[in-house]
Amino acid sequence: MTQNLVYLNGEYVPASEAKISIFDGAISLGMTVTESTRTFAHQPFRLRDHLERLYLSLKAARFDAGMMLDEMEQLTLEVWEKNRPHYPADTDAWIIHNITPGQWVPSSGQKPPESKPTVMIVTLPLDLSYWAEFYRTGCHAVTPFTRVQPAQSLDSRIKNRSRFLYTMAESEVKQFDPMAQSLILDTNGFLSENKGGNFFLVTKNCIKTPSTINCLNGISRQTIFQLANQLEIPIEECQLLPYDVTTADEAFFTSTPYCIMPATKFNGITVGNGEVGPITRNLISAWSQLVGIDIQEQAQQSQQSLS
Amino acid sequence: MTQNLVYLNGEYVPASEAKISIFDGAISLGMTVTESTRTFAHQPFRLRDHLERLYLSLKAARFDAGMMLDEMEQLTLEVWEKNRPHYPADTDAWIIHNITPGQWVPSSGQKPPESKPTVMIVTLPLDLSYWAEFYRTGCHAVTPFTRVQPAQSLDSRIKNRSRFLYTMAESEVKQFDPMAQSLILDTNGFLSENKGGNFFLVTKNCIKTPSTINCLNGISRQTIFQLANQLEIPIEECQLLPYDVTTADEAFFTSTPYCIMPATKFNGITVGNGEVGPITRNLISAWSQLVGIDIQEQAQQSQQSLS
Amino acid sequence: MTQNLVYLNGEYVPASEAKISIFDGAISLGMTVTESTRTFAHQPFRLRDHLERLYLSLKAARFDAGMMLDEMEQLTLEVWEKNRPHYPADTDAWIIHNITPGQWVPSSGQKPPESKPTVMIVTLPLDLSYWAEFYRTGCHAVTPFTRVQPAQSLDSRIKNRSRFLYTMAESEVKQFDPMAQSLILDTNGFLSENKGGNFFLVTKNCIKTPSTINCLNGISRQTIFQLANQLEIPIEECQLLPYDVTTADEAFFTSTPYCIMPATKFNGITVGNGEVGPITRNLISAWSQLVGIDIQEQAQQSQQSLS
Amino acid sequence: MTQNLVYLNGEYVPASEAKISIFDGAISLGMTVTESTRTFAHQPFRLRDHLERLYLSLKAARFDAGMMLDEMEQLTLEVWEKNRPHYPADTDAWIIHNITPGQWVPSSGQKPPESKPTVMIVTLPLDLSYWAEFYRTGCHAVTPFTRVQPAQSLDSRIKNRSRFLYTMAESEVKQFDPMAQSLILDTNGFLSENKGGNFFLVTKNCIKTPSTINCLNGISRQTIFQLANQLEIPIEECQLLPYDVTTADEAFFTSTPYCIMPATKFNGITVGNGEVGPITRNLISAWSQLVGIDIQEQAQQSQQSLS
Amino acid sequence: MTQNLVYLNGEYVPASEAKISIFDGAISLGMTVTESTRTFAHQPFRLRDHLERLYLSLKAARFDAGMMLDEMEQLTLEVWEKNRPHYPADTDAWIIHNITPGQWVPSSGQKPPESKPTVMIVTLPLDLSYWAEFYRTGCHAVTPFTRVQPAQSLDSRIKNRSRFLYTMAESEVKQFDPMAQSLILDTNGFLSENKGGNFFLVTKNCIKTPSTINCLNGISRQTIFQLANQLEIPIEECQLLPYDVTTADEAFFTSTPYCIMPATKFNGITVGNGEVGPITRNLISAWSQLVGIDIQEQAQQSQQSLS
Amino acid sequence: MTQNLVYLNGEYVPASEAKISIFDGAISLGMTVTESTRTFAHQPFRLRDHLERLYLSLKAARFDAGMMLDEMEQLTLEVWEKNRPHYPADTDAWIIHNITPGQWVPSSGQKPPESKPTVMIVTLPLDLSYWAEFYRTGCHAVTPFTRVQPAQSLDSRIKNRSRFLYTMAESEVKQFDPMAQSLILDTNGFLSENKGGNFFLVTKNCIKTPSTINCLNGISRQTIFQLANQLEIPIEECQLLPYDVTTADEAFFTSTPYCIMPATKFNGITVGNGEVGPITRNLISAWSQLVGIDIQEQAQQSQQSLS
Repeated sequence: MTQNLVYLNGEYVPASEAKISIFDGAISLGMTVTESTRTFAHQPFRLRDHLERLYLSLKAARFDAGMMLDEMEQLTLEVWEKNRPHYPADTDAWIIHNITPGQWVPSSGQKPPESKPTVMIVTLPLDLSYWAEFYRTGCHAVTPFTRVQPAQSLDSRIKNRSRFLYTMAESEVKQFDPMAQSLILDTNGFLSENKGGNFFLVTKNCIKTPSTINCLNGISRQTIFQLANQLEIPIEECQLLPYDVTTADEAFFTSTPYCIMPATKFNGITVGNGEVGPITRNLISAWSQLVGIDIQEQAQQSQQSLS
Repeated sequence: MTQNLVYLNGEYVPASEAKISIFDGAISLGMTVTESTRTFAHQPFRLRDHLERLYLSLKAARFDAGMMLDEMEQLTLEVWEKNRPHYPADTDAWIIHNITPGQWVPSSGQKPPESKPTVMIVTLPLDLSYWAEFYRTGCHAVTPFTRVQPAQSLDSRIKNRSRFLYTMAESEVKQFDPMAQSLILDTNGFLSENKGGNFFLVTKNCIKTPSTINCLNGISRQTIFQLANQLEIPIEECQLLPYDVTTADEAFFTSTPYCIMPATKFNGITVGNGEVGPITRNLISAWSQLVGIDIQEQAQQSQQSLS
Repeated sequence: MTQNLVYLNGEYVPASEAKISIFDGAISLGMTVTESTRTFAHQPFRLRDHLERLYLSLKAARFDAGMMLDEMEQLTLEVWEKNRPHYPADTDAWIIHNITPGQWVPSSGQKPPESKPTVMIVTLPLDLSYWAEFYRTGCHAVTPFTRVQPAQSLDSRIKNRSRFLYTMAESEVKQFDPMAQSLILDTNGFLSENKGGNFFLVTKNCIKTPSTINCLNGISRQTIFQLANQLEIPIEECQLLPYDVTTADEAFFTSTPYCIMPATKFNGITVGNGEVGPITRNLISAWSQLVGIDIQEQAQQSQQSLS
Repeated sequence: MTQNLVYLNGEYVPASEAKISIFDGAISLGMTVTESTRTFAHQPFRLRDHLERLYLSLKAARFDAGMMLDEMEQLTLEVWEKNRPHYPADTDAWIIHNITPGQWVPSSGQKPPESKPTVMIVTLPLDLSYWAEFYRTGCHAVTPFTRVQPAQSLDSRIKNRSRFLYTMAESEVKQFDPMAQSLILDTNGFLSENKGGNFFLVTKNCIKTPSTINCLNGISRQTIFQLANQLEIPIEECQLLPYDVTTADEAFFTSTPYCIMPATKFNGITVGNGEVGPITRNLISAWSQLVGIDIQEQAQQSQQSLS
Repeated sequence: MTQNLVYLNGEYVPASEAKISIFDGAISLGMTVTESTRTFAHQPFRLRDHLERLYLSLKAARFDAGMMLDEMEQLTLEVWEKNRPHYPADTDAWIIHNITPGQWVPSSGQKPPESKPTVMIVTLPLDLSYWAEFYRTGCHAVTPFTRVQPAQSLDSRIKNRSRFLYTMAESEVKQFDPMAQSLILDTNGFLSENKGGNFFLVTKNCIKTPSTINCLNGISRQTIFQLANQLEIPIEECQLLPYDVTTADEAFFTSTPYCIMPATKFNGITVGNGEVGPITRNLISAWSQLVGIDIQEQAQQSQQSLS
Repeated sequence: MTQNLVYLNGEYVPASEAKISIFDGAISLGMTVTESTRTFAHQPFRLRDHLERLYLSLKAARFDAGMMLDEMEQLTLEVWEKNRPHYPADTDAWIIHNITPGQWVPSSGQKPPESKPTVMIVTLPLDLSYWAEFYRTGCHAVTPFTRVQPAQSLDSRIKNRSRFLYTMAESEVKQFDPMAQSLILDTNGFLSENKGGNFFLVTKNCIKTPSTINCLNGISRQTIFQLANQLEIPIEECQLLPYDVTTADEAFFTSTPYCIMPATKFNGITVGNGEVGPITRNLISAWSQLVGIDIQEQAQQSQQSLS
């Protein structure tokens, strides 16, 4: 990790030395708008889509990044090109954007007029070992009692790093099963999302996922829609309840690093027949073809290289 | 500010050089538990109460500060003593604690076992100029359409820095009146709190404030209860609605830096007769006596020294 | 206005003399079921649709108009024909129906058996000057903190004149920007409607509008569906949130008098590029063609004739 | 009734000729702020309390009556003195205030600058015959499925005449029992109020009533608190549910005209032993003593004089 | 009824002697998962669909029936064949499955390890006389104030016999009209279901019914979808409100015994023209053709045989 | 257990032979109103209070027990006296009442007119071994994601056996810790109750418990109020949240069999210092004194006699 150079407000610094002031809004207010993109075979995947969402988040949050979207894209590619030579061919990167409104002086309660946004662009080698086994066995989705905040408090589509409640929800379920993955409900009891990913289930050959009124409009989620259309599998957004998972044939999460994480157990109940299902496997294959990388194999190699 | 030494994970660094890794949970997850204490005449005010609340927040958040409460108190006083010589007699300090679970490596989705909490203890000169005028004229409390998250999402009593929604709420009202102070409702439409303080109103010589099911259990709020009891003014917790503010005789916010900020206008409607009311003034006086500082005068001097 | 004859319970009276008893249910209970139709080039637009909705509202409200729908339609045309000669060719009319259950004697708490419904049919010259500028610049949609009542209290589809809360909501936003137009949320935080119109947005060339579970099923709203189908623009009903407006490409309101009122700012944030968008402009054109009147031009002439 | 002179915007007109323009905000927006006071032995009861509430309602509604509270009180007494000579000794009066923002021109969507408030002050002989029998037998309280609007839509404490939903709720229960009195729930299922009165129950010698977060803060309700204190009967505000009525010993409504209306049946279930209970009877007696009129007897005479 | 043999935990007993221990979870916890199938011309209708739903309910309830689905189906047919000879040709049967987790010893608070599920399979002659008249005149749907529990408490799709609230809701409406059929709302005020059936309405030739987030996914409901598709009548799931019934052209309930029960009155208001509508009649005909039985005629014969 | 005679509809039958028809409303509708009383030193504890609550439940459920309260009390004592001789001195009894509306013939959807209530009165030896260890170590309270139904669906104060959701909630938490005790939240996220008991916590020497708007008004709960008053420990009803348990000094459940079950862990977090606290121990002692039995010792003996 130390080999990566981080873009930090116009300068390049080694990741291990990338630091920001403790008076930055990132720390004092959790006021970080963010994106996480990944590469496949060293090619950034849907970077433009990620950055467009980043700029919508900034607009909603009422502060700006100090540069236009095109410039941000150019800069991002530059950061990646700078670091890419240090990446082995079989190791992909995580590209992270963190944008904050900059210094926030607590004594005045307001951003001083001269404050400039803090822009961080980070690349990190994508260590997939944590998820490798889940492609084969599926994970255990567990529902915490903590609920995601309703959109009238904070719209989940604004991708941000005020993740206190999500982290608490994840801690709750890990109390009971250290490998559990949170599947959080909204305040009406409907399925929303994982601490860092979207959720899907398959019932009678139809894929279903919550609409984005209570969860992030994930780029990986959009890719599932694209792949389902390509594979001619019906897919729809609807309100889903725990009963839907209990009685589903298959279930999986999606997120930037692992793409698809099958879930084969839900609150201790077997999902379907307890194995990773055929539609989930087809989607992983189709995604692998789309990006020219065997996603599952890459993760398992990542795991072996660690052991 | 540059003269202040910040305690940062066992070391003292000048405030202007106090920085943390961009991979800290503070930034990547907004996972900072926090307290803000202030001094009066250089004496920390209710520091023990602040630290006890800090440790309850940590307990609820399921991570620890790496030291016991007594040690934290000792250390805090040490930080303050180190910086105090640089403070003029008429300038008080803000003492800020930020505790995070430490480094959060994004590629694994989990805190690495060796991770240690990040502990920041900061003192800053308390610049009260922003609030000085409000003691005399009262501020304008404005209700944003954004609502605080319900306790089943995140209990407002856990004092933390995942403040994205509060910052957005504050931005909303400042669109319309740059000097407006947000008075945020909960998802049932009841009054909850300001972005950084509690709210009180006075009706027929009785002080009323929301119960802590939807707001921080502020130390300043507790001081109001203490002073009201001392002054034999009835005070009660209850569910309050915008109508209660519209028809109140007086209204004010409380928070660590300014103690009491009168509100004389509410969404464009005059509160009471539009002047800072007698009970509010009595509370400011009683607080001033309690701490041996004329709170309003100190703020106004703070303002003059800037102009 | 004085030239208009109003139909009032079987008689024709000049508008300036049209009065009803202060004991009428209209005043003592806000119990008025209503419709507002307009003419284009002196032809009433979708009068039958308006009257059908009126009769559904009456059915739901459990009182009747004292005449059948056909009779009401005939009578309405008669009122219009009586007043039409006084309208210049370039001035259209607003046709208003107000139906109440009649006299409500307060001392008994019940409608006396002999009470007959009060029927008012009014025509008024349509002064469009207030909205004229908005066709060009768009208006500023602002979200009040007051929320529309949920359907389990009163279904918004029953068009009635118990509009106390809508009027308060409109007053709230006008405190901050005298030209602001309220965009009211429901009690779950979803977009519902304006004080007197429906709301639409355009995202990626798709038109979206709230379903009628929390807003009036406007006749102008129905006309938008008809025009969108004709223009082959996708249009759908869905749950919408403030974030959807913030990130939309275009937005507009619809209502009987102005047909379409573009919105180019939302709570201080620019919608799209801040200009009236191409789909909105196409809809205005298509509507103008449908009715044989240049809607925007008519409004601007209305404005000039006033200055 | 025809003998009563109504104060209408500075003039006195006979009640039968008291009319307002159909373009008044009372009719076009249901925008009437109101009070209903009654006399006992020709003395207005708590008139000042009613008028103070009226002025709080006006403040919340953001329009004014065109005169100060003292002037309104003076004027009200003048109206009553003018009409009083026509009232027999055993007939009391209902004094009604209706205040509206005045003319509301629909074509501009806004109150014209020259518009003046409409002020109506009405006295009517108090015909109590409708309620007379209920003092003896108790009424049947029935719960409609329609719910009162939540305070975040419209605070029930603003006494106004946008009563569409209350009138619908009352119609619902009268479908099933023509003598039923609605007891409406709020959107959380808690008891709120009747279409025109407050609700109380007695359990184990303690009086309970909903707090004013979902109902009018009735002057009659305040009188019950006063009388309960005087009689040393414990009384408290709390959240109440249908089960509380089903299992109560006694129940009653309060409202200006009838003061107390006992309820002895609730959705077909007998309340207590099915008779008007001792605490209810004591309250009626105490109220009668307070005002020097036998309330129950007056109502029964009112009934006889009609038959 | 005494002629029917009931399958009870491996034995056949006459219905009149079919009893279970008062310590069974059926009684002590209402913990019975259930299905009700019927025959048409002695052929079980969609038995497999019923049993598949039964096994999903058991999965969600976390206990099992002690046998596989195929075995349960075989056994069910065996029970029916055993009893069928006693059924006249014109009398059909109700086949009921009740499965409980078995004995529940209250003193330990837990199911003892040796406990075995209780399996009851019952056939009963289908007495349709109660519903016979409704095919001709339609029933009166009445809305109780009790609301179905939200899915986050108990998902309505788990068909179970903890029906306390549904029975109370039904009792409420029968207080007012002994022939009334409850149409229960959910806690948001949306239409959900009857105490034992689903609800549909017809508006402008389109059939609408609540989605299964707040009601049972009835097999009869599924049959309506099948028949509507066959008859090319548009059918959709959506959120429905009382206003939708008031303004509908037709309305009906569906349930296993009666298949379709038209509703022609709703809370005292006529639905459509007050007669059983053409689409409802077409659906009854199509269903009759599907099963080879004139459903309405069978019910009316059932009624005559009783008189 | 076989030695106990059960009262069943007028007859005495051995517990092992106590059975009811599978067509009883207990089974077909979960329509059982119930009470559980226990003896201390063979004396029934607050039997009258239990029976009064039973009769309130029956009233709310709109069916009756076929006998008056006094008769029920007499009968209950008779049942106990009949079985008491078989109870060793150190073994107490659980006295259970189950009342159902009787036979429910499914084909008519209605209770037949001749149906009589089913009355079961059961005594069982109180096996306290399951809870014995918890007096010493405290239990682990765990929050399931299932929520209790809101009172507008079914008021928790009606003690009934439609316990499907409570049993599911208990199963959820036992998935993760077989010794966990559910602490269920209501649909707003507030603490309500356990599957069979009430919950209390102690903070700063004050006892707090949810009000009965979302939980049973337990007789054991009432005993805690009585003992707290006697011990002069402040006790109050209020809305409580998970944070309150996390930060409490002590916590415990109450229920008829075990009286008080301390909780020392909450969702994996230690409550207080992790030991049974002094106020909890004082309450157990005071209760023991009240009933003349060392409650903890009795439970531990119960445990030893089993091993």
